[in-house]
Amino acid sequence: MKLYDGGRAPNPRRVRVFLAEKGIEVPLVPVDMGAMGHRDEEVASRNPLRRLPVLELDDGTIITESVAICRYFEELHPEPPLFGTGAVGRAQVEMWQRRMELNFLSAIAAAFRHLHPAMKEWEVPQVAEWGEANKPKALEFLALLDRELASREFIAGDSYSIADITGLIAIDFMKPARLAVPEELGNVRRWYDAVAARPSAKA
Amino acid sequence: MKLYDGGRAPNPRRVRVFLAEKGIEVPLVPVDMGAMGHRDEEVASRNPLRRLPVLELDDGTIITESVAICRYFEELHPEPPLFGTGAVGRAQVEMWQRRMELNFLSAIAAAFRHLHPAMKEWEVPQVAEWGEANKPKALEFLALLDRELASREFIAGDSYSIADITGLIAIDFMKPARLAVPEELGNVRRWYDAVAARPSAKA
Repeated sequence: MKLYDGGRAPNPRRVRVFLAEKGIEVPLVPVDMGAMGHRDEEVASRNPLRRLPVLELDDGTIITESVAICRYFEELHPEPPLFGTGAVGRAQVEMWQRRMELNFLSAIAAAFRHLHPAMKEWEVPQVAEWGEANKPKALEFLALLDRELASREFIAGDSYSIADITGLIAIDFMKPARLAVPEELGNVRRWYDAVAARPSAKA
Repeated sequence: MKLYDGGRAPNPRRVRVFLAEKGIEVPLVPVDMGAMGHRDEEVASRNPLRRLPVLELDDGTIITESVAICRYFEELHPEPPLFGTGAVGRAQVEMWQRRMELNFLSAIAAAFRHLHPAMKEWEVPQVAEWGEANKPKALEFLALLDRELASREFIAGDSYSIADITGLIAIDFMKPARLAVPEELGNVRRWYDAVAARPSAKA
């Protein structure tokens, strides 16, 4: 198998952090997203949405969407479980993974894509008012997360999970989106320092 | 257990269609979203994001996020499988469920929430330019889906899955968003007619 990878972009990194936590090595095919390499035929013939990452299995089967790729590897290599354990535990991880993605990562991505000058060719049309509207949404969600993290170590419970990976890549994506974690959110800062210190965060 | 339900809104309906396909009956607690009932304490104390649906288990455990609720019921009642079979099959369903949700349902929702006068209090601020920008995104995705459906019966393969449920509720959400499936997309129309004719679509 091989993984068409997109460097620093959040979704490709989400899969690399996941693989690092599992201790899985997959041959990477680097694609230069800065040079719009993800819109070339090499990617487009594998993913009609022209997005990365893309996993290609040995029989040619294509799996796109970072969380679908992670879930595939979770089935091949169940340990350590990163999608939760037991029916309730797995539902809680799914709930938090979705909350982190749909309410937080997507707000940061909107602020970045609709406001950053470098995104002019990527996000057509850029709607600056929408980018601005997402900044308070991202910060409001972080305040909610801070209250949640007062009573537990990780986002979806007592174990590290894919919800923490989505949180990590989202927080690191705040900088290019010109956002910062407010000083007073001590629980978020404690959690972030812990997940960012894991070796997988370098992936 | 009980399911706090939100009537006609797409996400509550997604769970009801899923339960109907499984033949599962869960006691429903109706919440009047038109009267902003989802922002009342009854919901807010269970879901800090104040969204529906919300599943409450007998021990008080809360599961929110429609897909997390569906996944929980998939584990309790595996037949018929609606999240795919086998590691590759399940990854393909996850891939398509996400594509349908992130590229199609979310575009229709944005057009509805940012342009419909009734959404003024729900979506603050309404950004009309963003609503308009999403209309061609939704239609572009439908054209891609039409090409995909030329070679298979259902969205994620030869079996009905949660990706079809997300597709069904998204298409039905086009009407209030003032969008329509273009006449020439015959494969999408054939697929829609088939899934809309299933008894579960009435849920």
